[in-house]
This record gives sequence, structure tokens and C-alpha cells, in this order.
Amino acid sequence: MQKEKKESDKDLIFGIHPVREAIEAHKEFDRILIPHGTISETLKELITLAKAQNIPVHRVPSEKFERLTRRNKNHQHVIAFMSAVRYAPLEEVIAMAYEKGEAPFILVLDRVTDVRNFGAIVRTAECAGVHGIVVPSKNAAQIGSDALRTSAGALLHVPICRSQPLWDALIYMKEAGLQILCTTEKTDNSIYEPELFDAKAPLALVLGSEENGIANENLQHADVRMALPLQGQIASLNVSVAAGIAMYEVRRRRNIE
Amino acid sequence: MQKEKKESDKDLIFGIHPVREAIEAHKEFDRILIPHGTISETLKELITLAKAQNIPVHRVPSEKFERLTRRNKNHQHVIAFMSAVRYAPLEEVIAMAYEKGEAPFILVLDRVTDVRNFGAIVRTAECAGVHGIVVPSKNAAQIGSDALRTSAGALLHVPICRSQPLWDALIYMKEAGLQILCTTEKTDNSIYEPELFDAKAPLALVLGSEENGIANENLQHADVRMALPLQGQIASLNVSVAAGIAMYEVRRRRNIE
Repeated sequence: MQKEKKESDKDLIFGIHPVREAIEAHKEFDRILIPHGTISETLKELITLAKAQNIPVHRVPSEKFERLTRRNKNHQHVIAFMSAVRYAPLEEVIAMAYEKGEAPFILVLDRVTDVRNFGAIVRTAECAGVHGIVVPSKNAAQIGSDALRTSAGALLHVPICRSQPLWDALIYMKEAGLQILCTTEKTDNSIYEPELFDAKAPLALVLGSEENGIANENLQHADVRMALPLQGQIASLNVSVAAGIAMYEVRRRRNIE
Repeated sequence: MQKEKKESDKDLIFGIHPVREAIEAHKEFDRILIPHGTISETLKELITLAKAQNIPVHRVPSEKFERLTRRNKNHQHVIAFMSAVRYAPLEEVIAMAYEKGEAPFILVLDRVTDVRNFGAIVRTAECAGVHGIVVPSKNAAQIGSDALRTSAGALLHVPICRSQPLWDALIYMKEAGLQILCTTEKTDNSIYEPELFDAKAPLALVLGSEENGIANENLQHADVRMALPLQGQIASLNVSVAAGIAMYEVRRRRNIE
């Protein structure tokens, strides 16, 4: 447990000067956290600088901030979580798929915040030939060393794109000609209906969290809603398993002659 | 973390008298652990009693035993892990599938020891209409309250059978007319080849651990070896994801008209 904690610490930077240096060196940030309450002019400048580079800046309750900084008091009211990956622009990811002569296959994760599930999904995505994964800047799993480890290293091979709000990416992909396929319980369509979607055409597969599914503001952009058939009493799958089944169903259909 | 620990403690019984009482009350045991070294006559009698009821008794290194008993010194060199479920006889599970008018669909897990993966697999199995899961008595995940929680309660709905050695169950099922389908990398067959197996006939789907796959002594009983297609650099799936994809492929084929 202690070991795991130490590994996560590698992702953290404390204090105004170190964070500013990392921004100016164009390091990749997962997010910057600042406690609620009044803040200094220097910190305000830092926020402006961060936002200009599209780095997510979140204000959090003081108690949460105190917990995160328990072992490092020299924080000057700012912590940065560094990212284990360089985020990729979605348009480049789609262009690269076409350059390889493949129809884009993009995975979109709406509010999948559990790092272990996220890691397992990235690992499966790489095996299923997914070209890129889109996540929101808020309500996403932290993409640090824990995520890298649980992905078995796959995070270094599958491009991750960020979109805030997430539906911006959905609208962009729709206009670029991708089918938006939403896996949701709010439908009678089974993912296994043969005519439901064209697996060989460009597509984005959207999955939501176990607790809340896909948010309505994202679901409304669906071209196709489809459900995994569920028997039994529990009738609910782990999100990384559901994502695996859905990605491999696309993969299976792509390979049919 | 502390909370999780306490929940696991509910599965433990320490000391000769309490363990004997639980055996005589026909409680369901996951396993009994006894340290290496010489043991008392009373403890020998307890072992005989346990073995007569097919309860797995494992001798473990003293250091491991000491770690488990750190907070309860009154152990008298014996700890029992209680099971969250009643194990079911495999022949009954198969008979019950036929009684429901369904072709048996049995899942076999060879050395899947991670509790969280095991729980996720049980959860998927219930959704995929699996009739029962066979595990070995040794080299299996502990089926206690942690497994129950990670299965989202599905452990109470899917019968679990134990077979030591595991191949006894494979031989039994083969003779009972089930196809033995082994998912393994040691083959060129893709699970998606349409003629590879008859999904609507009785079958047992076997999965091995991420690290070691299916042991050769089990793999030799395969009627069909089949692999999940893997692209990319990592080319390895989490076992609960792989199990989910394979179970749902059986499920998909069963539902085709």
C-alpha cells in the first residue's frame, strides 16, 4: 500500500514556482488543484497561464486539499497532477487512422473515474485496435502512474484526447462522418442486431459510468443506442468488462469478410 | 482500507474448538490453514475430520501464518477461511440446466486467484447466463466477503463447484457430453471462426490465469482451443475482460436464430 502511494507521488508537483516551471516547460498536466477561498495575485497569474494552455484548473474544498498536501506543507495553495501521457488532438487521431487505411474506431468514456477500470479499458482498447480514446477533462480517471500500471503499459500506445465538454467531441466526430454508437440500457436494441450499425465504417463507441451511464447531454448525440443483453438477478456489468465486450463486437464485425 | 480489512475478518475462524464446531455444524469452508512444523494430536484429529468433509487443508510457511494471525494470538495453529457461498455438486448444476430446458454452459477458471478479477467474472457470468463456475480447491481466489462484494452479489446467484484436481471436472464434463472449449494463446484458431464450436450444444468454457494461462494438464482435455484476436504492442487482456468477451461470444451465438 505504501509503495503504491509513493508511486502516485511521482505524479505530483507542489508550489507556485515548480508548477509555473512545469507549465513553461510544456509538461503534460492531468489537472491543477487549488483550494476554495481567496487566493494571491501570483496564484491568479498562474491560473491564467494554465488556462491559456488548456490545463484543467479545479477549485476543491479545503479539507480535500489539506488531505492531499498532508505530507508536503510547502504547497502555496497549489498542487499539479502530472499526466503519464501526452494528450493528442482528436482531429490528428482520426487523420492518422485514415492514413493507415483504416476506418476510425474511437472510444469515448463518459465519467469513468475509477483508475483501475480506466486502465483495464485502455489495455483492451489497444488489443481491439481502437485508434484513440476521448475523455472529459473533469469527471475522468486520473491519468498518472497508477493508470499506466493498470493499463499494463497500453496507455503509452493508445492516444488519449480530452474534450470539455465531452459533447464537443461527439459533435465534431458526427460532422466528420463517424457514427456515434452509445451503449446504454435506455433502448431495446441489442448490440448483436446485425443491421444496427455498420462496423466497417468510421465510428465512435461511447460508454458511461457504471453508476450513471451516459449523461443525457451526450446521449442525445447518439446515432445508435444499443444495449448488451443481460440475464439474471444482478443485470449489471463492470464497466471495463462491458467496454471489452462492446469493443470486441465491433472488432468481430470488422473482420467478417 | 481499515474497513475492508474488517470485512474480511468476518470470514475467519481461529482456534481448534471454534473450527471443530464450524465443521460439525456443516458450515461452508473456503479452506483451513495450518503452519508447517509438528502439530498436536488434537490438531491432527481436526485435519482428519476436515478432510472427511472434503474441506481443503493447506499447510503454509510459518511466516505467512504469523502474518495472518497477527491480531489474534489465540489461534492454536489453525485458522479457517469461511466461504460466502455453499459449493454445489457439478452433476447437480448440469442436471439443473437440462431441467430448465437449456444446454449447460459451464465456466471453468484455472488458477484465477485475484479476488477482484474473480468477482468481476462471476458478475459477468450471471449476466451471460452461465449455469455454474468450476474452480480448483487450491490456486483459486478466496471466496469470502470481498469476492461477494466485487461480484456485486452475483456470487449468491451463480453456483460455484470445486474440483481438485481441476481436470477431474473436465473429464467428467467431457464424458457427460459437454464440449471443452479452452481459450488459450497456444492456437491459431480465432474464437470468432463460425465452425469452431457449436455454441448451442452443452459446453464448458475454460479460462486460465493472466500469468500462466491454462495448465497443460488441463489444456490436454480441450476439444477446441481458441484465441481472442489481439492487436497492438501489449497483446494481453485482463482475465476478467477476456472472460467477459468469451462468455458473451457464446451468448451471442446461442441467440442467433
